[in-house]
Amino acid sequence: MDYMFEGLPDASLYLSGTLDRYTNGTALIPRIAGKIALEEAVGSSLWNAYTTLPATNQINGYDGVPFDDTVGADIIARLTDVPARLQSMDQSGIGYVIVSLTSPGIEGIFDTANATSLAKQANDEMYANYVQAYPDRFGFFATVAMHDPSAAATELERAVTQLGAKGVLINGYSQIGSASNYTVQYLDEDQCEPFWAKVAELNVPVYLHPRPPPPSQQLLYGNGKYPMLAHAAYGFGAETTGHALRLMLSGLFDRYPAIQIILGHAAEALPFLVHRIDTRLEIGVPGADGPYNQTMKHYLQNNFYATLAGIRRLSTVRNTIEEMGEDRVMWSVDYPYESNEDAANWFDATEGLGVETKKKIGWKNAERIFNLTVTTTAS
Amino acid sequence: MDYMFEGLPDASLYLSGTLDRYTNGTALIPRIAGKIALEEAVGSSLWNAYTTLPATNQINGYDGVPFDDTVGADIIARLTDVPARLQSMDQSGIGYVIVSLTSPGIEGIFDTANATSLAKQANDEMYANYVQAYPDRFGFFATVAMHDPSAAATELERAVTQLGAKGVLINGYSQIGSASNYTVQYLDEDQCEPFWAKVAELNVPVYLHPRPPPPSQQLLYGNGKYPMLAHAAYGFGAETTGHALRLMLSGLFDRYPAIQIILGHAAEALPFLVHRIDTRLEIGVPGADGPYNQTMKHYLQNNFYATLAGIRRLSTVRNTIEEMGEDRVMWSVDYPYESNEDAANWFDATEGLGVETKKKIGWKNAERIFNLTVTTTAS
Amino acid sequence: MDYMFEGLPDASLYLSGTLDRYTNGTALIPRIAGKIALEEAVGSSLWNAYTTLPATNQINGYDGVPFDDTVGADIIARLTDVPARLQSMDQSGIGYVIVSLTSPGIEGIFDTANATSLAKQANDEMYANYVQAYPDRFGFFATVAMHDPSAAATELERAVTQLGAKGVLINGYSQIGSASNYTVQYLDEDQCEPFWAKVAELNVPVYLHPRPPPPSQQLLYGNGKYPMLAHAAYGFGAETTGHALRLMLSGLFDRYPAIQIILGHAAEALPFLVHRIDTRLEIGVPGADGPYNQTMKHYLQNNFYATLAGIRRLSTVRNTIEEMGEDRVMWSVDYPYESNEDAANWFDATEGLGVETKKKIGWKNAERIFNLTVTTTAS
Amino acid sequence: MDYMFEGLPDASLYLSGTLDRYTNGTALIPRIAGKIALEEAVGSSLWNAYTTLPATNQINGYDGVPFDDTVGADIIARLTDVPARLQSMDQSGIGYVIVSLTSPGIEGIFDTANATSLAKQANDEMYANYVQAYPDRFGFFATVAMHDPSAAATELERAVTQLGAKGVLINGYSQIGSASNYTVQYLDEDQCEPFWAKVAELNVPVYLHPRPPPPSQQLLYGNGKYPMLAHAAYGFGAETTGHALRLMLSGLFDRYPAIQIILGHAAEALPFLVHRIDTRLEIGVPGADGPYNQTMKHYLQNNFYATLAGIRRLSTVRNTIEEMGEDRVMWSVDYPYESNEDAANWFDATEGLGVETKKKIGWKNAERIFNLTVTTTAS
Repeated sequence: MDYMFEGLPDASLYLSGTLDRYTNGTALIPRIAGKIALEEAVGSSLWNAYTTLPATNQINGYDGVPFDDTVGADIIARLTDVPARLQSMDQSGIGYVIVSLTSPGIEGIFDTANATSLAKQANDEMYANYVQAYPDRFGFFATVAMHDPSAAATELERAVTQLGAKGVLINGYSQIGSASNYTVQYLDEDQCEPFWAKVAELNVPVYLHPRPPPPSQQLLYGNGKYPMLAHAAYGFGAETTGHALRLMLSGLFDRYPAIQIILGHAAEALPFLVHRIDTRLEIGVPGADGPYNQTMKHYLQNNFYATLAGIRRLSTVRNTIEEMGEDRVMWSVDYPYESNEDAANWFDATEGLGVETKKKIGWKNAERIFNLTVTTTAS
Repeated sequence: MDYMFEGLPDASLYLSGTLDRYTNGTALIPRIAGKIALEEAVGSSLWNAYTTLPATNQINGYDGVPFDDTVGADIIARLTDVPARLQSMDQSGIGYVIVSLTSPGIEGIFDTANATSLAKQANDEMYANYVQAYPDRFGFFATVAMHDPSAAATELERAVTQLGAKGVLINGYSQIGSASNYTVQYLDEDQCEPFWAKVAELNVPVYLHPRPPPPSQQLLYGNGKYPMLAHAAYGFGAETTGHALRLMLSGLFDRYPAIQIILGHAAEALPFLVHRIDTRLEIGVPGADGPYNQTMKHYLQNNFYATLAGIRRLSTVRNTIEEMGEDRVMWSVDYPYESNEDAANWFDATEGLGVETKKKIGWKNAERIFNLTVTTTAS
Repeated sequence: MDYMFEGLPDASLYLSGTLDRYTNGTALIPRIAGKIALEEAVGSSLWNAYTTLPATNQINGYDGVPFDDTVGADIIARLTDVPARLQSMDQSGIGYVIVSLTSPGIEGIFDTANATSLAKQANDEMYANYVQAYPDRFGFFATVAMHDPSAAATELERAVTQLGAKGVLINGYSQIGSASNYTVQYLDEDQCEPFWAKVAELNVPVYLHPRPPPPSQQLLYGNGKYPMLAHAAYGFGAETTGHALRLMLSGLFDRYPAIQIILGHAAEALPFLVHRIDTRLEIGVPGADGPYNQTMKHYLQNNFYATLAGIRRLSTVRNTIEEMGEDRVMWSVDYPYESNEDAANWFDATEGLGVETKKKIGWKNAERIFNLTVTTTAS
Repeated sequence: MDYMFEGLPDASLYLSGTLDRYTNGTALIPRIAGKIALEEAVGSSLWNAYTTLPATNQINGYDGVPFDDTVGADIIARLTDVPARLQSMDQSGIGYVIVSLTSPGIEGIFDTANATSLAKQANDEMYANYVQAYPDRFGFFATVAMHDPSAAATELERAVTQLGAKGVLINGYSQIGSASNYTVQYLDEDQCEPFWAKVAELNVPVYLHPRPPPPSQQLLYGNGKYPMLAHAAYGFGAETTGHALRLMLSGLFDRYPAIQIILGHAAEALPFLVHRIDTRLEIGVPGADGPYNQTMKHYLQNNFYATLAGIRRLSTVRNTIEEMGEDRVMWSVDYPYESNEDAANWFDATEGLGVETKKKIGWKNAERIFNLTVTTTAS
């Protein structure tokens, strides 16, 4: 029923001959069934994927978990609990999820051989536990070890062609070397070219997922004084925005105009910032900022998709749609770091997006981009 | 707490160590206390104010009541039930209401002497039953008999200066004569001048409330084929929009630039229409459409306030704010024709307006315009 | 170049080494080429199509022309001047236009036989003068005489299948009889059924174009006191909105769910009004307002397209998109009653719509709906 | 005239009896006079204020100037050319400007004694050259040396009480020590308390102006590979956003609830990000991210103003207004790094903000906040 997409219901007025329709202060949220979510993390039985390997002191112990203890334990348990995940999806009207290995995952494994080997095993495990077990409910994004971009290309091809991976998810920069001595590698660096050539050949999207800034780069965040500031509250987004801009400036999308990058969190503030970024680049020394040929806005509108993972805010979503177009925005959750129920309640109840727009964001865009058809029984 | 103005709550996440915060499919709506409402109808013990007097067959029996029987009985009872009104206000976070005589009221009394006399009595009754009885909860808009504009001016002065009326509410055109032979008088007609002079002198706003089109003018609505079409679903607004434009075209606001008209229902589509109205007036024969000196948009932005009576739709409210400014828009209900609870649930839960904007629309604008201070205990 | 869709240019900064880029107070508007326009009026060599036939005193002489003399003469000349139209299209970046007979056209011809005959001749003339002469620049909407709905169905079929008409345009109600004694027929009346059956069979859209309210229905407009108020400034829209709602209430779209109606002028305020219309219909006597099964919003979102003929206002356009979806809104002009250059300047320069949205509204939606491909050399 | 605030003009249609009103592809922009601008940089005769002192290799030579040579020379000349500034203000409808010392200014002077002394002299110079010379056109924000916060407090008091400074502008972090060995100090650090106590006592706003990230923190920007990425195109904003969040987390606004911070560039993406920042802080270890008591959104809405320096984008401005309220947003330019003419052309022509909103942003908010009255002759 169309009213499902219209926000809080205000139909069935006077059904009981009274004006006091609602119990004071609560509202029924019509559940929109069949939604698709794309930034949905899973753990691994092979190692603690949410830490670097071997462990380094990044903020307050681990790469991405400065959590309250209770919350942290709950999240960690949910990373590998498939029945709980399915139950939560059912309660939240989520028909289909593309899972991926949680951050930092492979990118936080310092040793190249180990990273390359574990990436392959992790893909096999995601395939077996999710896709093969519940083909109607789960797809997966492959993980690859960018430490060796040629090997990453090979593994990507295997994951896509043999395991049916819907694309690949990269957790930002890779740390390569050892815990005490490593280099940080971003995706725009020259040595990554074999990976990008394979991405273009396979024609699958690359989800660029956040990591906190490297430990040496946390002066702005007080070097641990404000751990969440360096983490998901702000540092994640600042880091990922910069990484995405490096890809644009590097000319990647001029060399491979069809490559598509997915960014979570409403494209990490790029919709808000991109116009000024372009006007400021204009006053730089021509060519000094990289061999790009188009505006950053052009790349954003032609080479990027945004998901709403972690976003429950109308002003942010509207800004994103206005800059990227409603055909490039997809709902998501970021489970289990976010609640499926919270994310669904916000989206299902929001009135500030048109009916057709909500359908596109809720599932139609994902169906088109990933060639999916999600069968659902409307709740 | 500020989160009260932010839409559906998504705070207190993980309070219980679980992500499944909400009972699936319901949400708590934080109630915003102290709201003010301005298009709130009351009946009269003196006559059936929601019919013409004597009765005429307007659509299907009465001026404004082609209601479902159950609904109609409930509404009619509520028009005069003060305790039920107060209880509903309390449940809905409404701190203060300016009541007015329901449509058609005085404007539907054909006989001039009778209309003039009943207006005076109705004002005394509204004052006694609402303002005097509950001075912290109620104000009132006076009613006057436009059949005799000089007498209307006299009664308006009495109501404002002696009874503390917050302004005057006019139910559209007046029917003057008898049930079988009457003229229809709009407020831009020359004979209304003494009334407007007094309005300007007293410096009080005039609420222009809808009526359905006169019976002879209902060909578009199928002459009864679609009763609600001629009534609140569409005819009310089409009629009132035209009436407001007549005032603008008549030069009233050039003669009295300080006069302020209040329109309900998001200014009855004028925010959506006004730009085109102005561009089309430009191609007319100069002067042939009235002695006005400004654009209709100028009048809308300088001589009109909008209430949200009957409006629970973000796109409509945003359009209204964009054209009239957030300082000229005031929330309202249209009780008992609308539900206080529905109206409050929508407004309290909507996220699509900024925090400060919600405060202005919720009560701050009304406090400024009517020189009120509403004391409330935040729920 | 994508910057063409971004509003006023602010690129090429510092081209001359100076910050004073613009001559103070003017801006270059990047012209967007290849736009499609759909509410574009033409006259007829067969009779004065912009008057009723025989003439009646509608407002101040004619059905739709209370114009300033200079303006009126210019408009009338342009209705039939094809080279001037093409030149103006070229200057304004308009690649393709679907023309139609100006209002009142056939609907203002009282005699049924005459109306039926002239409709056929007018279609032949539009085909010859526009489509056959400039197949890359013009299509046409057929005209039919609703006086005899079966004959109208026959002529519609001929126009579509033999002349390639893109649909049919109806100028509101038809006046049937004689100048001194006629009935007014709206499209929801029972006798129109054969026409609608043929529309559904041919699967072509129906453009519902405005007329001023019938002479007997102009009390609200002062019976000639404010001629433009009854005409394009307000009466056109109020009349057409009511007519569209009659179609919805009549159950037409329940009987023929695929029928598509095009409304000009941003759907004549329905996007602003429709939510309240639905909530008010809910309190009516069930079934008393017609045999419809869906909300009016459902019909608006599934059976209506909007054009922006005559609209150059961002708030209005945004409201329309929000309610109808960006895939159902199409730019247009209303030439020669509006200026191609004005309409194009506004649309080409506006920044308040996203790039992809502007492309859809500018031509992509029309290409999809009318199965067109407009070849253009980007300016 | 009100039409001045309505976007591109479309009045005076048919003035010449023709529809071809505009020369194809250009539009007259109605100039809005009397605007106020707040992020307007000036140089100093005392030292090269746009470099660190002594010079360090920050990105490609200086703190903030990886400019094209022609552009750079033009900007540097304009920093100190008062007549050119006034001429540009006149051409752009700018009535009044609050100037401030360009970045890095005092914050880039390593030696504490030198910084303290030069701050005092710079304030005297700004006062003499701008405020004393053109009291109707210029005010100034003081500069202070945060190297010695007590001395900074003393100088702030002198500047405000004796020179009439409108507040103080701080260029982000301070570098304290020597060019080869310095510490970086942010404004939330404990030793800054005497400064904040004086700010609260004097009740003047603090403009937090960007700097690029410190040299050691530019790994994300390729350590010079993309100089503009670290600079105004992105690094400025990322750095300043983090700095502002440090102030919020530090509890500064709980200790001094009346302190007001001004951020340029539409509050540096905080409006887009703030909702998610709050929801992510909720899952952190309670108290571990600082002794703050409110949400970041609360601080943004109660302790921050935004200017539109460098912003010419409707989607960004609307997002900012929606989160911060239209009473907390002020137009600005960032001259001479941005063009007065470009900034004015965009703002004067934009239609996507309401008339009253444009007046508030254009000058009314600044008049209220800085207790100004700007006299202007409307152009």
